[in-house]
Amino acid sequence: MIARRAKHIAAAAVLTLLAACSTTESLIQPADPLPSWNDGATKEAITTFVEAVTTEGGPDYVAPADRIATFDNDGTLWPSHPMYTQLVFALDRIKVLAPQHPEWKTTQPFKDVLDGNLEGLAGSGEKGIAELVMATHAGMSTADFEAIVSDWFTTAKHPHFDRLYTDLAYQPMLELLDYLRANEFTTYIVSGGGVEFMRPMTEEVYGIPAQQVIGSSIVTKFEMQDGRPVLMREAKVDFIDDKDGKPVGINKFIGKRPIAAFGNSDGDREMLEWTAGGDGARLMMLVFHDDAEREFAYGPANGQPDTKFGTFSQALMDEAKSSGWNVISMKDDWGTIFAASE
Amino acid sequence: MIARRAKHIAAAAVLTLLAACSTTESLIQPADPLPSWNDGATKEAITTFVEAVTTEGGPDYVAPADRIATFDNDGTLWPSHPMYTQLVFALDRIKVLAPQHPEWKTTQPFKDVLDGNLEGLAGSGEKGIAELVMATHAGMSTADFEAIVSDWFTTAKHPHFDRLYTDLAYQPMLELLDYLRANEFTTYIVSGGGVEFMRPMTEEVYGIPAQQVIGSSIVTKFEMQDGRPVLMREAKVDFIDDKDGKPVGINKFIGKRPIAAFGNSDGDREMLEWTAGGDGARLMMLVFHDDAEREFAYGPANGQPDTKFGTFSQALMDEAKSSGWNVISMKDDWGTIFAASE
Repeated sequence: MIARRAKHIAAAAVLTLLAACSTTESLIQPADPLPSWNDGATKEAITTFVEAVTTEGGPDYVAPADRIATFDNDGTLWPSHPMYTQLVFALDRIKVLAPQHPEWKTTQPFKDVLDGNLEGLAGSGEKGIAELVMATHAGMSTADFEAIVSDWFTTAKHPHFDRLYTDLAYQPMLELLDYLRANEFTTYIVSGGGVEFMRPMTEEVYGIPAQQVIGSSIVTKFEMQDGRPVLMREAKVDFIDDKDGKPVGINKFIGKRPIAAFGNSDGDREMLEWTAGGDGARLMMLVFHDDAEREFAYGPANGQPDTKFGTFSQALMDEAKSSGWNVISMKDDWGTIFAASE
Repeated sequence: MIARRAKHIAAAAVLTLLAACSTTESLIQPADPLPSWNDGATKEAITTFVEAVTTEGGPDYVAPADRIATFDNDGTLWPSHPMYTQLVFALDRIKVLAPQHPEWKTTQPFKDVLDGNLEGLAGSGEKGIAELVMATHAGMSTADFEAIVSDWFTTAKHPHFDRLYTDLAYQPMLELLDYLRANEFTTYIVSGGGVEFMRPMTEEVYGIPAQQVIGSSIVTKFEMQDGRPVLMREAKVDFIDDKDGKPVGINKFIGKRPIAAFGNSDGDREMLEWTAGGDGARLMMLVFHDDAEREFAYGPANGQPDTKFGTFSQALMDEAKSSGWNVISMKDDWGTIFAASE
C-alpha cells in the first residue's frame, strides 16, 4: 500500500514539473485516466462532466476550491458484503475481549457472537448491533482505538476474497479518485461508518487524508490522565452520518455543497439530492451491485433478495432514472473490479 | 479584500514556479516573512519552530500532511472587544427583525436590546445571550443565513475603529498564516464562534476556506421544500467548540493533532494542552491584549478589569509560563496591529 501511495505522489510531482516547465503541450496529454472503466455512457458521463467544470471560460466552469466530490465508502469504494467491514471488526473484538467479560457467555447479543450464531445476531436488530459497537468502540482513548483499528487492518481478511480488506478497494473507483484529484477536485468520504474506524486506513487505501473523512461518531471527552491530555471515547452516539445525516454532515464539515457525489444505496439518496440541488453542472452516480461472478449481486432492483448491508431499493432506482443520475453497472461498466494481488 | 487574496495566490504561484524551475537557490530566499513582528524572542520562537519541523532529515521534521496549525478567531485573529463580533451581529438582527415581533418590546432580553440597555442585557447572562442567538440564527435555511451574514459583513463597522470588521484582522497574524502556509502547513480556525457565521468571510479575510473552519453549531435538518432540498437551522445547540470542546472539535473535524496552536483566552487552554501533549516539536502561543493605545488592554493578568469577551486569567498565564508556551505581547511584539486602511 505504501508503494501505491508513493506512486501517486511521484506521478503528481511529475505532472507539476511538466505543467510548470514544459513548453510542449503534448507532453502532458494523459493516457486514458480510467482504464478499468469500459467505454460507454457511464464512463463518458464522468469525463464529459469533468471537462465541463474544468474548462475555463466555459458555461459550467467551477473554480478548483469549489470542486468538492463526496464518496460513500461501504459498497461504493469497497465491498459491503457479506457484511460491513466495521461489523466484522466489532465481532472480532468481542472474541478478543470475551475473557475479560465472562458474563457475555450468557448475555445477548454477545452470546450469539461467541457461539457464531449470526442468524440469531441478525434477529437482535439495530439495538443489538449498537450494543456490540459500543462494547467494542468505547471505553478507551482515541489514540488506543486508532492503534487497535490499525493493527486489525494489517491482518483482517475478507472471507470471500481471502484478501486484506485494505486491498479490496474497487480499482475503477481508485482511478476515478485519482482522475478527479488530478483535475483539482477535493475528494471526501461521507460514510455511515465510524469516522475513527475509517481514518486509520483511508490515506493509504484511497489517498484521502483524515480531515477529508466524514462519518458517524460517538461522543469523546477531554480528560487529563497522569498530567497528559486524552480524548476518551464514550458509549454515546454523537452523530449518525447516514441518509438525511449525510447532507447535514457535509454542511457541517465542509461548508460547501458537492458538485459530484457517489453512493450505492438508499443511505446515499439525500446526499445525491443535496448535490443535485445546487446550480450548474452536477454528477450523481450510484454503484449497482449486479456482478454475482466477480463481486456480489443483491437487492430487489436486480431481482435478488434484499440486504441489510446496502439496500438499493426500486424507489432509489426510479429516482435515479427520473433525476438523470447515473447508475454504474459493476458487471457492464467495470473491466476490472480489484487491482491484481500484490 | 479580493486584491489581498489575488496577491496571496500570485505569490504562491511564483514560489511554485521558482521551486520547480529555478537552478539558483538564492532566487527563492524570501525576505522577512513576518515584517510586522518586532525582532525578539517571540518572533524567533516562531521561525525556529518552523525551521525545525520543515528541515528534512532533522530530528523534529514533520511531513507536510501533518503540519496542522489551529487558530482561535476572536481576540486571536481579530478583536473581541468591546464585544464579540457575532454578538454585534445578533443585536443588529434583533433590531431588523423587531417589526415582525411586537412582543419583543415588552419581553427580555429583547427589550433591553431594543432600548439599547447593554448593562441590563449583560445581567441576563448566558441564558439571555443564548435566546438572542437562537432568535437571530435559527429558523431559516443555511443558504438564507449565509446570505444574511455575508450582507451584514459588507457594511458592519467596528464602533471603536470605525472600519469594517473584515478589515480588522491583525496584520501580524495574517503574515503568520501566510508564512505557515508557505511552509506547507494547513491552517485551521478553531473558534467558539458559530461556524456558519465565520465561513462566509474566512477565505477573503484570512485565506482560510470553509472546510478549515471549526466552530460552534446549531442543529440543521434536511428537508425538501417545493421539490428542492434545504438544510433548516433549528433553535437547538449541536456543538460548543470552546474550552474542552476545542480538542474534541479538532479530533472530530481534522482527525490529527495540531503541532501549533494559537489562542488568547481561557477558552483556548485545552486546545493548547492537547497540542502540547503530542510528541516532537510544538508551538503554543497566546495573544495578550496589553495595548490600550493601539487596541485594548484587559484582564487581571495585566492589572485590568476582567472581561466577558476573552478572559486571560492569571491561572492561564501561570500555566503558559510553567509549560513554556509563548505569550505574544501586542504592545511589544507587534510593530503593526492592523493593515493600513485601503
